[in-house]
Amino acid sequence: MVVQPTREDKFSFGLWTVGWRAVDPFGSATRAPLDPAEAVHKLAGLGAWGITFHDDDLIPFGSDDASREQHIKRFRTALDETGLVVPMATTNLFGHPVFKEGALTNNDRDIRRYALRKIMRNVDLAAELGASTYVLWGGREGSETDAGKDVRAALDRYREGIDTVAQYVLDQGYDLRLALEPKPNEPRGDIFLPTVGHALAFIATLEHHEMVGLNPEVGHEQMAGLNVVHGIGQALWQGKLFHIDLNGQRGPRYDQDLIFGHGDVLSSFFLVDLLENGGYEGPRHFDYKPLRTEDFDGVWASAAANMRSYLLLRERARAFRADPRVQEALAAARVPALAEPTLAEGERPADLKADRSAFEEFDPDAAAERGYGLAHLSQLAFEHLLGHQES
Amino acid sequence: MVVQPTREDKFSFGLWTVGWRAVDPFGSATRAPLDPAEAVHKLAGLGAWGITFHDDDLIPFGSDDASREQHIKRFRTALDETGLVVPMATTNLFGHPVFKEGALTNNDRDIRRYALRKIMRNVDLAAELGASTYVLWGGREGSETDAGKDVRAALDRYREGIDTVAQYVLDQGYDLRLALEPKPNEPRGDIFLPTVGHALAFIATLEHHEMVGLNPEVGHEQMAGLNVVHGIGQALWQGKLFHIDLNGQRGPRYDQDLIFGHGDVLSSFFLVDLLENGGYEGPRHFDYKPLRTEDFDGVWASAAANMRSYLLLRERARAFRADPRVQEALAAARVPALAEPTLAEGERPADLKADRSAFEEFDPDAAAERGYGLAHLSQLAFEHLLGHQES
Amino acid sequence: MVVQPTREDKFSFGLWTVGWRAVDPFGSATRAPLDPAEAVHKLAGLGAWGITFHDDDLIPFGSDDASREQHIKRFRTALDETGLVVPMATTNLFGHPVFKEGALTNNDRDIRRYALRKIMRNVDLAAELGASTYVLWGGREGSETDAGKDVRAALDRYREGIDTVAQYVLDQGYDLRLALEPKPNEPRGDIFLPTVGHALAFIATLEHHEMVGLNPEVGHEQMAGLNVVHGIGQALWQGKLFHIDLNGQRGPRYDQDLIFGHGDVLSSFFLVDLLENGGYEGPRHFDYKPLRTEDFDGVWASAAANMRSYLLLRERARAFRADPRVQEALAAARVPALAEPTLAEGERPADLKADRSAFEEFDPDAAAERGYGLAHLSQLAFEHLLGHQES
Amino acid sequence: MVVQPTREDKFSFGLWTVGWRAVDPFGSATRAPLDPAEAVHKLAGLGAWGITFHDDDLIPFGSDDASREQHIKRFRTALDETGLVVPMATTNLFGHPVFKEGALTNNDRDIRRYALRKIMRNVDLAAELGASTYVLWGGREGSETDAGKDVRAALDRYREGIDTVAQYVLDQGYDLRLALEPKPNEPRGDIFLPTVGHALAFIATLEHHEMVGLNPEVGHEQMAGLNVVHGIGQALWQGKLFHIDLNGQRGPRYDQDLIFGHGDVLSSFFLVDLLENGGYEGPRHFDYKPLRTEDFDGVWASAAANMRSYLLLRERARAFRADPRVQEALAAARVPALAEPTLAEGERPADLKADRSAFEEFDPDAAAERGYGLAHLSQLAFEHLLGHQES
Repeated sequence: MVVQPTREDKFSFGLWTVGWRAVDPFGSATRAPLDPAEAVHKLAGLGAWGITFHDDDLIPFGSDDASREQHIKRFRTALDETGLVVPMATTNLFGHPVFKEGALTNNDRDIRRYALRKIMRNVDLAAELGASTYVLWGGREGSETDAGKDVRAALDRYREGIDTVAQYVLDQGYDLRLALEPKPNEPRGDIFLPTVGHALAFIATLEHHEMVGLNPEVGHEQMAGLNVVHGIGQALWQGKLFHIDLNGQRGPRYDQDLIFGHGDVLSSFFLVDLLENGGYEGPRHFDYKPLRTEDFDGVWASAAANMRSYLLLRERARAFRADPRVQEALAAARVPALAEPTLAEGERPADLKADRSAFEEFDPDAAAERGYGLAHLSQLAFEHLLGHQES
Repeated sequence: MVVQPTREDKFSFGLWTVGWRAVDPFGSATRAPLDPAEAVHKLAGLGAWGITFHDDDLIPFGSDDASREQHIKRFRTALDETGLVVPMATTNLFGHPVFKEGALTNNDRDIRRYALRKIMRNVDLAAELGASTYVLWGGREGSETDAGKDVRAALDRYREGIDTVAQYVLDQGYDLRLALEPKPNEPRGDIFLPTVGHALAFIATLEHHEMVGLNPEVGHEQMAGLNVVHGIGQALWQGKLFHIDLNGQRGPRYDQDLIFGHGDVLSSFFLVDLLENGGYEGPRHFDYKPLRTEDFDGVWASAAANMRSYLLLRERARAFRADPRVQEALAAARVPALAEPTLAEGERPADLKADRSAFEEFDPDAAAERGYGLAHLSQLAFEHLLGHQES
Repeated sequence: MVVQPTREDKFSFGLWTVGWRAVDPFGSATRAPLDPAEAVHKLAGLGAWGITFHDDDLIPFGSDDASREQHIKRFRTALDETGLVVPMATTNLFGHPVFKEGALTNNDRDIRRYALRKIMRNVDLAAELGASTYVLWGGREGSETDAGKDVRAALDRYREGIDTVAQYVLDQGYDLRLALEPKPNEPRGDIFLPTVGHALAFIATLEHHEMVGLNPEVGHEQMAGLNVVHGIGQALWQGKLFHIDLNGQRGPRYDQDLIFGHGDVLSSFFLVDLLENGGYEGPRHFDYKPLRTEDFDGVWASAAANMRSYLLLRERARAFRADPRVQEALAAARVPALAEPTLAEGERPADLKADRSAFEEFDPDAAAERGYGLAHLSQLAFEHLLGHQES
Repeated sequence: MVVQPTREDKFSFGLWTVGWRAVDPFGSATRAPLDPAEAVHKLAGLGAWGITFHDDDLIPFGSDDASREQHIKRFRTALDETGLVVPMATTNLFGHPVFKEGALTNNDRDIRRYALRKIMRNVDLAAELGASTYVLWGGREGSETDAGKDVRAALDRYREGIDTVAQYVLDQGYDLRLALEPKPNEPRGDIFLPTVGHALAFIATLEHHEMVGLNPEVGHEQMAGLNVVHGIGQALWQGKLFHIDLNGQRGPRYDQDLIFGHGDVLSSFFLVDLLENGGYEGPRHFDYKPLRTEDFDGVWASAAANMRSYLLLRERARAFRADPRVQEALAAARVPALAEPTLAEGERPADLKADRSAFEEFDPDAAAERGYGLAHLSQLAFEHLLGHQES
């Protein structure tokens, strides 16, 4: 099998990924700045389909209007030359010290207003560049001490902020949906809307909730030790998987942003299986950081590695689903039977209560006897993951 | 200060807490069974106000109708003798082997139906005993391998199950609200609705969502490394804190169910502060396990300890809020200013965009200069927690 | 490729693994007791080479001498019939309530003495059955509150205990080595000697340290979020990898004891690579628990799955090492160059200080330029794991 | 009670703590550089006793000899003016890109040699300034992929490196001891010698092991979910607690370096109790980071807060130990009885085997009956922590 990404695979990368200069909490940059236009050309050459950006990735913070236009123009030219699209954009509300105590939930109202304006400005650019999703990651919305933040006031302001952005998008007539990105911690001690669940729950309270969904990041869920397949499954189930950030993480620790597949391999396998079979049509967006040990050769090798990992896992997932032994094992575990409603059509609680076969005549001990064959099924998955098919 | 709980404090305990026989994954029971009637008398004597139960705590699984009535009668008598109330009840859908692969989301439809009937039966008893909250903890709803469960089908069935229970309550005219209890894992590898957030999001999809809320457990959120004050703050903010399970946990590891306060002390302090000042009027329910090292003296000492810890923390939180230095520090950190809307009354996105003071004339570097005084504020909290007040 | 274990693979299982009745903290047994003799026959039939046991697995706690002999005899017969060996045995110092506060470090001296006698008795049996390793897992040696245990006194007693067992083995002339098994927590809140490192450090203080090594368990290290390959690498490096417990775990949470490979797949791959290439000659011992959802068919499927996973990973690791592209990538990353001493032969600190090329003339900025090619190398490992070899 | 640190309390701070400019993985500096001389004066004014430094904290990397001397002179003057001492110093082997793949275990031998020279140079300065402890934290010694590092070769080089530094200290006749600082991860995916245990075990293999001990950091152990009191207890027990880094951390997540006390409060309490009663005579060194939200007022408030927290906890621990109810509870739990050897003086294994009272006549069921009173004891600790004493 040849592993070669094509545009149809809809692979996209953040400018900030390949452009990460590898500053970490204990060390300075190991790589030179990367020209966004070069990033576009290189990624296109590797088979990517799209590129995404924070405002400050493309236009250095504090640029005047003329140089801003210059940056945008160079970027557009590169897009035109390569055919790369911009499916998503987002705002940097975390890098500048002004956001040190939060952006949309900063205790300082002037900073909240400034943050909204910074978003609106880049929403304009996102629309101009044809993006269909606008991501909001509230990396500084949180606290290190519960004394310093009234959670409920913070959520009020957070809601007001997202509602304002949504209203702005509507007022401008942009064809954009918003996608919130949850994360449990780092850089704040605790971040509001820490998981897929909390963000989904918050969205249900929004005025324009129908145009707001999620951009979950694989590693962010795993930093809380959560099953990312379950979380993204719930987001899909609630119709809210608007975008996704694929990468790798090795459990609860600092945010690693490893190459997709290089974290929890089994979870990566089942996630690809879910995305491919779950009706998700959006970009396969990689939000990773090339290791700080790497030079630019390593950066491009790592960009390619993300796409290769996805394609290999997709092939493994397809073979798994197509294997008749797997179909048998699924049936034996009654997995498909879960799709059947528990109540009969039109059955009411009173009817269920009257059904003696459901309780009075049901023998729980007998029903407990049978095994579910999950050891067999999960081993089949493991072996397919490893590319092994018993002949 | 004398620390003595009274009925007004609304402290309640699960029968399964003081009655836990201390079987753990590696060892057998260290304590004899506890007669529910004795539990009622002892807890009343210690100052508790309420008692809660799973069906199987009160009536051993498989009891015939006559002995069932006998158990209930003995329990009622004890309640009458002591004045203890039953504010909440719940169903054991995890102990019997029949639920080994799930209850409401079991791949086997017969088991799902049986689970619903088991719930309905105990809902009847809960209503009869005057409970106002019915808790549902889906401890077996989950998986160890993503191959064995279609997450979206599972959520369909979960929703159907909760909707059915809600409909039953309505049909019966019971004055009961349902409260879901999230947990990330254990006894399943991964449990559905793993956090406060996921459960809140799920509730928004229910037919009778207005009568379904949460019963968060302190330790369950902490098993995912999440800030429980933030989670419960969000539940309160969404009007969904119907009940609460107080206990202690020392971070991501097995479910410890320590005495309240004996886990993350700072979080316990801020949680009591939130409950006392956040409008929560419900029971302060302890869901803990007396250490396996303890005999019955230790069991009762631990029950008392939960209440004492709460009362001491409440006193500390009150002193913290009342301290003028704290008020000053809060103002300096602009904590109260977060209550002010970001937009002026009637301000639209276009108005904000036109406000040059918000962006064009705003100086982020200047705004970044000021410190928030959070070191000072959090140290004040720490010292109040320790009962220290500088004279 | 056909995946079929043979005796040469040295696969062994604990009696308590396939015999686990699936009691967990929230549920009762889902499987009947398993006759040890049947376990021996089944495992032999699946291709295993050895079987191991706690005293109480083979001889129910409290058996009289006659029935004890009966149990041993039946077991021996099964061994003789199948050719299975007993490479290791261990003591159950955690199941009975007497050990609820510890065994060798119990605050009660009588219980410490009883624990030692229980060990000595099973050491006799282990020697009689030809075991060469005796494992000690101190699952109850620990605490839930630091007030309840003087750590240094506990370590004194722990050392005294292990020294006594070692002396007993010497006195009896048994050809047995002792192997300590670390674990961070569960069933105690915190267990002494929580990791490979702590146990190695403790061993260095023992009187008979040369005959005491480790039995690390994959999942136990991962419960602390540690890299198990690093830990076992250090144990090998210190000549102390006497035995190993292979299984799977999904990060910090309760002890899952999954099938080997079904946890952190990448770590399993590199662990097999290390064991196969690192000079470890001992048993490949599986210490896992068949999922509680399984009947006995599932038990045997899971036993086979452990061995299949190991064999498949071994094949993948061999292909990885044999791949010329991997050799090139290792050289490019200078991995082999780490074997070269940093000082020249006979070089003293003063010589190094005098070497101007090492510091005064060394250009750190230039040396920082080069990349290490680790993205490429780790992707090669990932693809080999998945059985993919670019043609 | 007035809380005021004095020199006798031996509080010390790293220059890099108050001087941290608050760059984090997602944001740039929020504070200006701090002049080391100013740090000395401010800390002295707050009641500190000592100050510590990395070479590059005091002398910017790449300074020429003249400016180097200038920096040292200014620092010395400040020390002289204030009476502050320099009890410890250490080397920055992590900030410059040259160390991106490691220092003493870098795959590149030239970099390993450079790292040794960088250490030796600062060892000279440490000795000159009167330090008695030299700390080595190998923050870049580790890996993100197990393919990129041969663990055993890395440990060979690590040992060679530490042995060389020790030999250098001996050759120079310095009165310095070395102290290794373990950390599980960050900035590397996994760091070698990840815990107190692994580092202790490693030390036992060193040529000059007697002069090498530990500098454990509270938060580093807690990043692995380990009980820091147990870890530091073991270090003390092995005579290897040479120095300590006090701070706060909220479980497994990024390295937070909170104010001491502002993480796990109970553990902080018991740690102070251990240090005060365990014979540790060294500095109480704070290695924390003032929150990024703070200006310099907040920096100094946080520095003071560390010392206040320690003093308050010390007072609480003393009251706990002095309370007769606590003494009773300890006796009831038989905590002091753990100091008694398990074997009688001169008792051999054969004697124990012959003692029928230890086994044949011992009744485990009876011995299992008694409770240990740990609920009561731990509640006493909790209440003392909160400054509550029942009158």
